[in-house]
Amino acid sequence: MSIRVTVFGENVHEQKSRIVASIYPEGMHQTIADALNTDPGISAGTVTLQQPEHGLTAETLAQTDVLFWWGHAAHGEVEDAVVERVCDAVWSGMGMVFLHSAHFSKPFKRLMGAPCNLTWREAGERERLWLTSPNHPIAAGLPNHFELENEEMYGEPFGVPEPLETVFISWFAGGEVFRSGLTYKRGAGNVFYFRPGHETYPTYHDANVQTVLRNAAHWAYNPAARLADPNAAPNVPVTEALEPIKERGPRLHQDGEAGYR
Amino acid sequence: MSIRVTVFGENVHEQKSRIVASIYPEGMHQTIADALNTDPGISAGTVTLQQPEHGLTAETLAQTDVLFWWGHAAHGEVEDAVVERVCDAVWSGMGMVFLHSAHFSKPFKRLMGAPCNLTWREAGERERLWLTSPNHPIAAGLPNHFELENEEMYGEPFGVPEPLETVFISWFAGGEVFRSGLTYKRGAGNVFYFRPGHETYPTYHDANVQTVLRNAAHWAYNPAARLADPNAAPNVPVTEALEPIKERGPRLHQDGEAGYR
Amino acid sequence: MSIRVTVFGENVHEQKSRIVASIYPEGMHQTIADALNTDPGISAGTVTLQQPEHGLTAETLAQTDVLFWWGHAAHGEVEDAVVERVCDAVWSGMGMVFLHSAHFSKPFKRLMGAPCNLTWREAGERERLWLTSPNHPIAAGLPNHFELENEEMYGEPFGVPEPLETVFISWFAGGEVFRSGLTYKRGAGNVFYFRPGHETYPTYHDANVQTVLRNAAHWAYNPAARLADPNAAPNVPVTEALEPIKERGPRLHQDGEAGYR
Amino acid sequence: MSIRVTVFGENVHEQKSRIVASIYPEGMHQTIADALNTDPGISAGTVTLQQPEHGLTAETLAQTDVLFWWGHAAHGEVEDAVVERVCDAVWSGMGMVFLHSAHFSKPFKRLMGAPCNLTWREAGERERLWLTSPNHPIAAGLPNHFELENEEMYGEPFGVPEPLETVFISWFAGGEVFRSGLTYKRGAGNVFYFRPGHETYPTYHDANVQTVLRNAAHWAYNPAARLADPNAAPNVPVTEALEPIKERGPRLHQDGEAGYR
Repeated sequence: MSIRVTVFGENVHEQKSRIVASIYPEGMHQTIADALNTDPGISAGTVTLQQPEHGLTAETLAQTDVLFWWGHAAHGEVEDAVVERVCDAVWSGMGMVFLHSAHFSKPFKRLMGAPCNLTWREAGERERLWLTSPNHPIAAGLPNHFELENEEMYGEPFGVPEPLETVFISWFAGGEVFRSGLTYKRGAGNVFYFRPGHETYPTYHDANVQTVLRNAAHWAYNPAARLADPNAAPNVPVTEALEPIKERGPRLHQDGEAGYR
Repeated sequence: MSIRVTVFGENVHEQKSRIVASIYPEGMHQTIADALNTDPGISAGTVTLQQPEHGLTAETLAQTDVLFWWGHAAHGEVEDAVVERVCDAVWSGMGMVFLHSAHFSKPFKRLMGAPCNLTWREAGERERLWLTSPNHPIAAGLPNHFELENEEMYGEPFGVPEPLETVFISWFAGGEVFRSGLTYKRGAGNVFYFRPGHETYPTYHDANVQTVLRNAAHWAYNPAARLADPNAAPNVPVTEALEPIKERGPRLHQDGEAGYR
Repeated sequence: MSIRVTVFGENVHEQKSRIVASIYPEGMHQTIADALNTDPGISAGTVTLQQPEHGLTAETLAQTDVLFWWGHAAHGEVEDAVVERVCDAVWSGMGMVFLHSAHFSKPFKRLMGAPCNLTWREAGERERLWLTSPNHPIAAGLPNHFELENEEMYGEPFGVPEPLETVFISWFAGGEVFRSGLTYKRGAGNVFYFRPGHETYPTYHDANVQTVLRNAAHWAYNPAARLADPNAAPNVPVTEALEPIKERGPRLHQDGEAGYR
Repeated sequence: MSIRVTVFGENVHEQKSRIVASIYPEGMHQTIADALNTDPGISAGTVTLQQPEHGLTAETLAQTDVLFWWGHAAHGEVEDAVVERVCDAVWSGMGMVFLHSAHFSKPFKRLMGAPCNLTWREAGERERLWLTSPNHPIAAGLPNHFELENEEMYGEPFGVPEPLETVFISWFAGGEVFRSGLTYKRGAGNVFYFRPGHETYPTYHDANVQTVLRNAAHWAYNPAARLADPNAAPNVPVTEALEPIKERGPRLHQDGEAGYR
């Protein structure tokens, strides 16, 4: 059975900017999904900001193995309730891949617990991505570096927690560097951040970038059943303790009572 | 100059529960602050939930090197604006120590980006904390294990991100284990979680626990000046690039324009 | 195509100890291999210390996707040249799983760069392993805890580097805890340490333990081609620099010269 | 009391190369020690490869809080017994800072358990180091980037384990990037790797580099008493178990017996 991917696209600049529309006539999300669907092991669909609940209903998330997220101009328009739903899905085991300007998206900031800030410059300069983790599955089939002739610059310090692994680091012609591929785990969910993808450049048409997208879907996918309630904090009654103990001392809670939150 | 610590105490059970009041007649926060103040290198004061803005005004946070947090029954009453202010302070370099049931406090959940859940049992059972990182500064002066005869049990899985370092792991008489001392960095701020401290037991009167509190204040303290704006994402104009580059290709932003958020 | 596993067994106590021989009449390595071979996706064979080069010839390693290692009484008899060969294979991409007393094996100590020491007691006490990383692939199909009624105790502090992820932590009846499942990456190779498996107890006949073994083989396996030379440190001549630069200043080396080691 | 630093210098090229001798007339080790000694909280001395036991006797190591290591041309001449002694000292709590080409030194490779390889080019090109961990103590007093106009290039992939924290990443004019500041813990010892310092350039005369050296000494220093035996693996007799247990099942070892190694 193939990995079920949902690609969230903000779909704002594609409608407002002739440049973006000319590069991505069907929307960036569709180009990303098309790239993923060239892999017979992946089945990718799309949703956009403009749909009710941004297309990210509970039902859709339940049937999504890996969620890709691209947003930029309209982070603030994403509903908080949807953000919580997405985070709950990640914590219960859904994989998630954040692309480029999604570093400032609500769910990424929520999952990182950090500012997620950086420096930036929109000058169409050369970016070169270097692999820092040999044979990492997200880099399968790639050389140990590849270039994007025109990209937006993102510079360090990148305000994110130390990752599980740093997979890519970018070199920019203007003199900056950036940790461009970072892996995390949040709850039961695998999370990957991948830097490239400014909307005024044809980045998602690049063969190496498309390879990363497909690899990331495989890496983030976890075949285990989702956790029923990723926030559960169950009380274990004394009578059900794994080792025989006797209750001692004073207590606040009664048996089976829910804890405070 | 001494490290300026502020201890946030929820101060609810001390007022409602005779048991808690008898153990901590001046409040848990005061006992914690007193323990910290036995170290001449630390100067600790307290604030409580009931104060305006919970006592955590911008001015107070600006003069706090390390914030300790104990809460349990009233996590939901902490104002979201204060939570954001506290997180901003951490990201700009303030140290923070979360105690026991603060695993479910708003700022901890916000900084972790994860469910922070666990299993629990209130039976006054024996807890034994084992040191897992030899010579870690947070364990200075401690043996490689110590016991608390009566504590609440917290059990794995603990729903937090993989830490920078695991410093303590607890053994419980009823058969569970728990990662009881975990270090993190969020933005420029050092964060430590320390498990013991259920309000119906005299945990914060324990000499070893008090040693951990003092060590944690020293560990979390960073003498560097706070970042002016931990969320800043400055544009670097082409003309100020560190290496000479020419602007190429189309762009969305004008020079000096703020980016999207 | 199935994952090719080689199980290295020291095969000493099976020959010397009636107890061990009665539990593992065909050797511990064979029981481990048999457990792995119940998975149609795995094809496991065995080698032992007593074979020439311990059975770990260059050819065998080249055809091994994941190497399992069990040793205890005869760590010192493993030839240093074989240890280097095994480490080179890991660095070039072979997965490796270290079992129980292999914490003191030469290749584990070599890959960890740390003492790998611990406390221990051989009393047939109860061990309970708790999952600390929900939905981790190494725990697929397991409950969030399982027990081994008779095991040797290993206690913290465990002298290993902080892992990529802590997957299991053990509780022991005698009062200790231990990080029993730890993941690492060394070079291009995935490395897993799994604690249980003292030779006087039937641990490798346990269904949950066998599940971990099979999962670990899948987790450690990397389908990418091995690195040709995991220790290569190639010179990049100025004329082949990716960006045009001119040689400046004095230098020690001539073009194409090998660096110092 | 000040931090006692010992700087190990290979002292080979200073004797053989006019260029190196002209930049470092008293040896690189002396320049490094002089830079450290400008800090009244540090007291630094030097040892060289040519001394008996390379100057790294048991007595010297016992009185060294932090050991700095620079070597390049003669890694192979460092005695294995001294390497083991140095590693034991680190594991027992001594801090250690590896500089530049020490990535291929015996003690660094031993502590990393990995190939520690990289790509390189000696062209006197521009290196720019970016801070990736805001307010990290090793970067105290530094801007968020600084430049070295002439340096040797080191390029990714750098064959080291994932660090505790990545502190610096370098940009090179020729198009490469490199993780130039990495922190580790091995046993009880703090370890820092810092990239710059090719012998044909005046890197250790640079003010920013000297600041990093001083900060690194403070960061790596641990005031805790050294572990008496960092490799100890003590048996805990049943009679001394912290919880009452009875010995069960067969066993290999007798009470008080040393374990296998």
